[in-house]
Amino acid sequence: MLEKIFRDPIHMDIMVKDPIIYDLINTKEFQRLRRIKQLGTTSYTFHGGEHSRFSHCLGVYNIARRMVERFEQVYPETWKAEENLVTMAGALLHDVGHGAYSHTFERLFGTDHEALTQAIITNPETEVYQVLVRVSPDFPQKVASVINHTYPNPQVVQLISSQIDADRMDYLLRDSYYTGVNYGQFDLTRILKSMMPVETGIVFSQSGMHAVEDYLVSRYQMYMQVYFHPASRAIEVLLQKLLDRAKALFEEQTAYFELTSPNLLPFFRQAYTLSDYLKLDDGVMNTYFQTWMTSPDPILSDLADRFVNRKIFKSATFEAGQEALLLSLDQIVASVGFDPAYYTAVHNNFDLPYDIYRPEVKNPRTQIEIIQKDGTILELSQLSPLVQTLAGTKHGNSRYYFLKDMLEANDLFAAEKQSFISHIRNDRLVP
Amino acid sequence: MLEKIFRDPIHMDIMVKDPIIYDLINTKEFQRLRRIKQLGTTSYTFHGGEHSRFSHCLGVYNIARRMVERFEQVYPETWKAEENLVTMAGALLHDVGHGAYSHTFERLFGTDHEALTQAIITNPETEVYQVLVRVSPDFPQKVASVINHTYPNPQVVQLISSQIDADRMDYLLRDSYYTGVNYGQFDLTRILKSMMPVETGIVFSQSGMHAVEDYLVSRYQMYMQVYFHPASRAIEVLLQKLLDRAKALFEEQTAYFELTSPNLLPFFRQAYTLSDYLKLDDGVMNTYFQTWMTSPDPILSDLADRFVNRKIFKSATFEAGQEALLLSLDQIVASVGFDPAYYTAVHNNFDLPYDIYRPEVKNPRTQIEIIQKDGTILELSQLSPLVQTLAGTKHGNSRYYFLKDMLEANDLFAAEKQSFISHIRNDRLVP
Amino acid sequence: MLEKIFRDPIHMDIMVKDPIIYDLINTKEFQRLRRIKQLGTTSYTFHGGEHSRFSHCLGVYNIARRMVERFEQVYPETWKAEENLVTMAGALLHDVGHGAYSHTFERLFGTDHEALTQAIITNPETEVYQVLVRVSPDFPQKVASVINHTYPNPQVVQLISSQIDADRMDYLLRDSYYTGVNYGQFDLTRILKSMMPVETGIVFSQSGMHAVEDYLVSRYQMYMQVYFHPASRAIEVLLQKLLDRAKALFEEQTAYFELTSPNLLPFFRQAYTLSDYLKLDDGVMNTYFQTWMTSPDPILSDLADRFVNRKIFKSATFEAGQEALLLSLDQIVASVGFDPAYYTAVHNNFDLPYDIYRPEVKNPRTQIEIIQKDGTILELSQLSPLVQTLAGTKHGNSRYYFLKDMLEANDLFAAEKQSFISHIRNDRLVP
Amino acid sequence: MLEKIFRDPIHMDIMVKDPIIYDLINTKEFQRLRRIKQLGTTSYTFHGGEHSRFSHCLGVYNIARRMVERFEQVYPETWKAEENLVTMAGALLHDVGHGAYSHTFERLFGTDHEALTQAIITNPETEVYQVLVRVSPDFPQKVASVINHTYPNPQVVQLISSQIDADRMDYLLRDSYYTGVNYGQFDLTRILKSMMPVETGIVFSQSGMHAVEDYLVSRYQMYMQVYFHPASRAIEVLLQKLLDRAKALFEEQTAYFELTSPNLLPFFRQAYTLSDYLKLDDGVMNTYFQTWMTSPDPILSDLADRFVNRKIFKSATFEAGQEALLLSLDQIVASVGFDPAYYTAVHNNFDLPYDIYRPEVKNPRTQIEIIQKDGTILELSQLSPLVQTLAGTKHGNSRYYFLKDMLEANDLFAAEKQSFISHIRNDRLVP
Repeated sequence: MLEKIFRDPIHMDIMVKDPIIYDLINTKEFQRLRRIKQLGTTSYTFHGGEHSRFSHCLGVYNIARRMVERFEQVYPETWKAEENLVTMAGALLHDVGHGAYSHTFERLFGTDHEALTQAIITNPETEVYQVLVRVSPDFPQKVASVINHTYPNPQVVQLISSQIDADRMDYLLRDSYYTGVNYGQFDLTRILKSMMPVETGIVFSQSGMHAVEDYLVSRYQMYMQVYFHPASRAIEVLLQKLLDRAKALFEEQTAYFELTSPNLLPFFRQAYTLSDYLKLDDGVMNTYFQTWMTSPDPILSDLADRFVNRKIFKSATFEAGQEALLLSLDQIVASVGFDPAYYTAVHNNFDLPYDIYRPEVKNPRTQIEIIQKDGTILELSQLSPLVQTLAGTKHGNSRYYFLKDMLEANDLFAAEKQSFISHIRNDRLVP
Repeated sequence: MLEKIFRDPIHMDIMVKDPIIYDLINTKEFQRLRRIKQLGTTSYTFHGGEHSRFSHCLGVYNIARRMVERFEQVYPETWKAEENLVTMAGALLHDVGHGAYSHTFERLFGTDHEALTQAIITNPETEVYQVLVRVSPDFPQKVASVINHTYPNPQVVQLISSQIDADRMDYLLRDSYYTGVNYGQFDLTRILKSMMPVETGIVFSQSGMHAVEDYLVSRYQMYMQVYFHPASRAIEVLLQKLLDRAKALFEEQTAYFELTSPNLLPFFRQAYTLSDYLKLDDGVMNTYFQTWMTSPDPILSDLADRFVNRKIFKSATFEAGQEALLLSLDQIVASVGFDPAYYTAVHNNFDLPYDIYRPEVKNPRTQIEIIQKDGTILELSQLSPLVQTLAGTKHGNSRYYFLKDMLEANDLFAAEKQSFISHIRNDRLVP
Repeated sequence: MLEKIFRDPIHMDIMVKDPIIYDLINTKEFQRLRRIKQLGTTSYTFHGGEHSRFSHCLGVYNIARRMVERFEQVYPETWKAEENLVTMAGALLHDVGHGAYSHTFERLFGTDHEALTQAIITNPETEVYQVLVRVSPDFPQKVASVINHTYPNPQVVQLISSQIDADRMDYLLRDSYYTGVNYGQFDLTRILKSMMPVETGIVFSQSGMHAVEDYLVSRYQMYMQVYFHPASRAIEVLLQKLLDRAKALFEEQTAYFELTSPNLLPFFRQAYTLSDYLKLDDGVMNTYFQTWMTSPDPILSDLADRFVNRKIFKSATFEAGQEALLLSLDQIVASVGFDPAYYTAVHNNFDLPYDIYRPEVKNPRTQIEIIQKDGTILELSQLSPLVQTLAGTKHGNSRYYFLKDMLEANDLFAAEKQSFISHIRNDRLVP
Repeated sequence: MLEKIFRDPIHMDIMVKDPIIYDLINTKEFQRLRRIKQLGTTSYTFHGGEHSRFSHCLGVYNIARRMVERFEQVYPETWKAEENLVTMAGALLHDVGHGAYSHTFERLFGTDHEALTQAIITNPETEVYQVLVRVSPDFPQKVASVINHTYPNPQVVQLISSQIDADRMDYLLRDSYYTGVNYGQFDLTRILKSMMPVETGIVFSQSGMHAVEDYLVSRYQMYMQVYFHPASRAIEVLLQKLLDRAKALFEEQTAYFELTSPNLLPFFRQAYTLSDYLKLDDGVMNTYFQTWMTSPDPILSDLADRFVNRKIFKSATFEAGQEALLLSLDQIVASVGFDPAYYTAVHNNFDLPYDIYRPEVKNPRTQIEIIQKDGTILELSQLSPLVQTLAGTKHGNSRYYFLKDMLEANDLFAAEKQSFISHIRNDRLVP
């Protein structure tokens, strides 16, 4: 029997007993995840959070493994053991299509990490496909369908992708551990022990209710405190402006980009293949950004320098209805000599921490359900006042970003800057 | 008063109150450490250990800060508060000259991270220098001398660099936390509380003796279990062979390397400046290695592929005196069609976990001393049988590395490989 | 300088530098707290939670010490250093009047641990008084007034006793650590760092807002999951019935109790002195209960046996308005041969997790306030939707307790018990 | 299927699936362990270590459960599943005969907790016996034979009782966690994963070697730092002197002890039954000691007061050969007015951290063995220099205890005390 162990700070020993899983980990597409940070730009704010998507994906696999091994043992009548491998493979590969700085990159270049995950799994040229197909000719497609929610067994889909799934449970614990904030901690073992496969999917026993509640509160707190941190978003803004500028320059300075950033060309040209995509990672992107620091274009070189050396923008929150104010602030920025297209930004971050099933909306959520002693099932927010608060309401804010320079009113533009400063109070824009 | 906080999983809140320290952290030379992994190739074996030298250096600073703040309060007569800043700056910057994959890189290209640390601190063109010189004209030189052990006050030097210093204490705790192994843990708070500045340097009170002992045992265990792990060393071997090959090809294929790996040219040419050095980091190197995967040279492209996609060598230990055996194994490898210059390697890893002061040797170590109630001072290994075991003896082993292929005797070369395999037993080479 | 260290799993090193504090710890009244469990009957459900009030009180002291040391250093203008000692002494002694199984004991015998705390501090015969009076003749009274909220400086009072004070912070962390549940964890260091003394008391800076929110959620979860656990309350019910029975028997069986439980006599007789009170602790009570196991009274001996050997009652929740149902269940219990006065019980547990200041109510709460960058102050629930949910609403439930025997319908009384059982569904009473 | 969970801070969820185990936990003999502290007098020095033998025994059971469940799954050919229950029951009950302050009590009254454990398991009147006998008529005897090492299967015996067994592993982790010292931590999961049942007992795979080494070092450190702490031993000395005095007084003051300490009489009279023994626990003993504080005998009341209120003796180490010095110190103590029989003591604490199998000695130890890849087996100290240091050598020291009063030379006896003091230097006796 194979028994490979990956030492992991969250799960201690990640056990791999199935050779298919072991061989998937060793594919080049999966190894590539070592070169992409899980938290992207957030590690520039929480310096401890430098872990890769590789670590996270192993962790998701391990949670899924614990789930299916327990189901096989405790619920042999409602869980079919032949679902084990497809569940574990789906867990391991659910993020295999993620790229460097995915969020920003997708917005600018129209890539889609979910479609790319599907492609990596089902394209016969990938090593991932070649491992999966050893199980059966339709196995790659099966794994892909688990990830895109079309797999017929809702139990399997919900373990990998729902409001309380292996993915979210690993990233909360992992991001919390690595950044050193306390918020993401919850009782994983208790939750796993309360999971029960039923015909319609997964439910949780009464004894796990408070652990599930705690998980949702933890998730909410991680969003508010870590993922939506103003400084992390400032780096994201910088990155976006930097790529914006490169894209804008590409037409007229093609030769420059051919020399300095060859792997980005297919994306500038909007004609890329899967193989092009797999050549990008954090290191490649950062290498290009470092090269751009000496670009002849002053905006490109300035933004590259700011990103590489972490000279970030400042910000303040604002509310819907303050658009006119944003416009006038942009004008002040312009009057001081900075192009607002590159030196100011609006950044919105909102999350819906939990929701009940709403058949009328697009992509309705699978609600979390608690099974009672007599078998009746209740939706979670009916049992927990805390979850009720979080349900159905988006949390987050909108921020206006600008150069730190605008707050230093000791130069030629002191008057303009004073006027700018007068609109910021307690971290908010005011009229 | 400035009060910046960096959230850190090892130290919780790293406090920065001095603007000099804060500005040093924000220099481009220091920010560059974000792009260099602390554990180098080890993170390919212990996937959790992906933290950067940036995190480690902040941690060393924080331990030094706690030391000097306590000394200032508790030992105002033997510790001069004017040493605080130079100690903290020395701690922060002690590794600022580290580069990507330092160990291997230094061996191949003759760079020296200690000399480069000195250069970054004392070269007037660096941002680090420009911050330090604000304190006083000789401050950069002072900080540099702390790091190279020539600073006159032995207390300061020992806090930064001795057998029990801020550097080692941070990396043991940090590497242990991130990799998820338990071995590196010890009681930092207790050790800090037992430190006492005396005229000749730093001593430890009796109450901290067992914590110091535990620290030395922990350090020993981290070396044996993590830093000397056969698989980590296998990656290091791969990297070394890869760079070896590139260097060997450079003369005849200069144009290829000019195009694919411009930042490495000054090193191939043995004529680099500080500025050249600062352009290298893990991402740049990995980007080049990925490009080399399509090199026309079959050995370069194969080794690059193995490194990037983690297809590592196997190994077995051997003892002094078995050199003839190594030679004959190399011959088998050659007979099977692999060039032993690139496909076998010897790798030695030895550490001297602790030693007493030995004036007769080069770079004698500062021994660890315990102060007793009546003020007499004893060297640690006289008090602890565990430390006595570790003192003065090198621990580690030598390994012979080769292709995994050599163990698969199911092809044309089955007979040769069988002969090869017959020399490996229980992870050791046998006659 | 004195520097005594108490090793503690929550605070690592509890430092004692002031000889007054050290001598208070060594008084017999304080040492007595070693013999009283912090969690009382709860340790019969959460077996890990066997820590004493001694440990908790040391912990409260240590949190208070960290608060005042930081205030002295960071806010010398709004915090007077001469308040340090009275704050630390108040923290250490705030629970010194607690007795064995306080809750139940107080209800039955009319003792009041708060009044007894005042007495221990201000009665000239106690060792505690004799240490305190060395500071100044009015110091015992000052410390007592801190604890009973009449001390003039609201800062000091709020550090020891408010909705977020040293007491609560220690017990949440400690009870969570010892029982092994995760719920009580929060970021103590961050909260301490965000505390700020102002004229009207203590406020928290914006940067600590989420940590304070997390603390309140943690506290709520500890109440719901640990302190209100049905099985813990079952032990409390047993204890109450046992003491009820002893009290009821005392008049006619005085000689029996004089022999078996001398230290309880003053309480049965409702005429006790401070010295009588200090003779009681968990061990003394349990020793008596063990003796009562052989009492000739069958109810006393049965209840004593149940308590000592943990044979606990079962329960179900009920709502207001179901009183008639309780009555009819009691009748069934009686019909089966058990006296409902001793073999059924109603137990209510409700907590108000947080409230704003309400001047109109008795003992209005000090609300938690957040100070913004420009100095304006906002009440917490205005900033946090989670806290708003918890504010002003009591959480908990009422439970009806009965013998486990009532659920085993396999005897003479099968019909009656079946009828009883039919009223319980999903842990609730139903008509 | 039964699935009871006990929440535990060391093992998180302790699972009980077998009704025999659950019913054993609920016997009165096992519940009694809640009233006996695991660390005895040590909790007076390490205040956090207040956990009971109940918690520890549950933990030992849980480690044994994990062992046998893994063996059943991974080694079905060398481990017989029918050994599971006897192993788990043996683990749970291995300490069930422990009493209050066992160590001291045994020495004074000749009780033997191992014989009493055997008695509780095999005496038909105990609840423990009545549960065990439900399995089979010879099951109680089987469980007893596991604990006294006469069970024929050495695998089972070694899991419960060897140099690396479930008992030691739980108490190291638990005592370390509760006291808050770091020393006892090691990698339990890794050790469990490396255990392998072979014909002659249990061996460990190569991959667990360093974890086993770490366990032995941790155990050594816990002995040196916690179990042998001078202050803990000071309490033990006090307790011993107190019971000595009571025993000496018993003959002439029988009536006094009949009234104040009835449960101790059978032991004073050297004629006790199992039932007498089971009536003693920490609370009963402490209750008696508190009563003795008002005894008319000044030595008994003084020693009782010292024990109850923790007024401990001071001490210094001495070496073999210094007996004459001890005698002359005793004479000084006598000359100052204290009876050395009650106010001085010699206390020896030595431990043999590890030993190889030595057939020639009484009770030879089962050595720890490592199995290599090719199946050959090596004894641990041959592989680990650290273990070699610990093997075969006793560690510890002898201490001379005396009244703190002897160090305060400010009274009538100043000259005598000065002479006494002159013999103590750096915590050692000197000529």
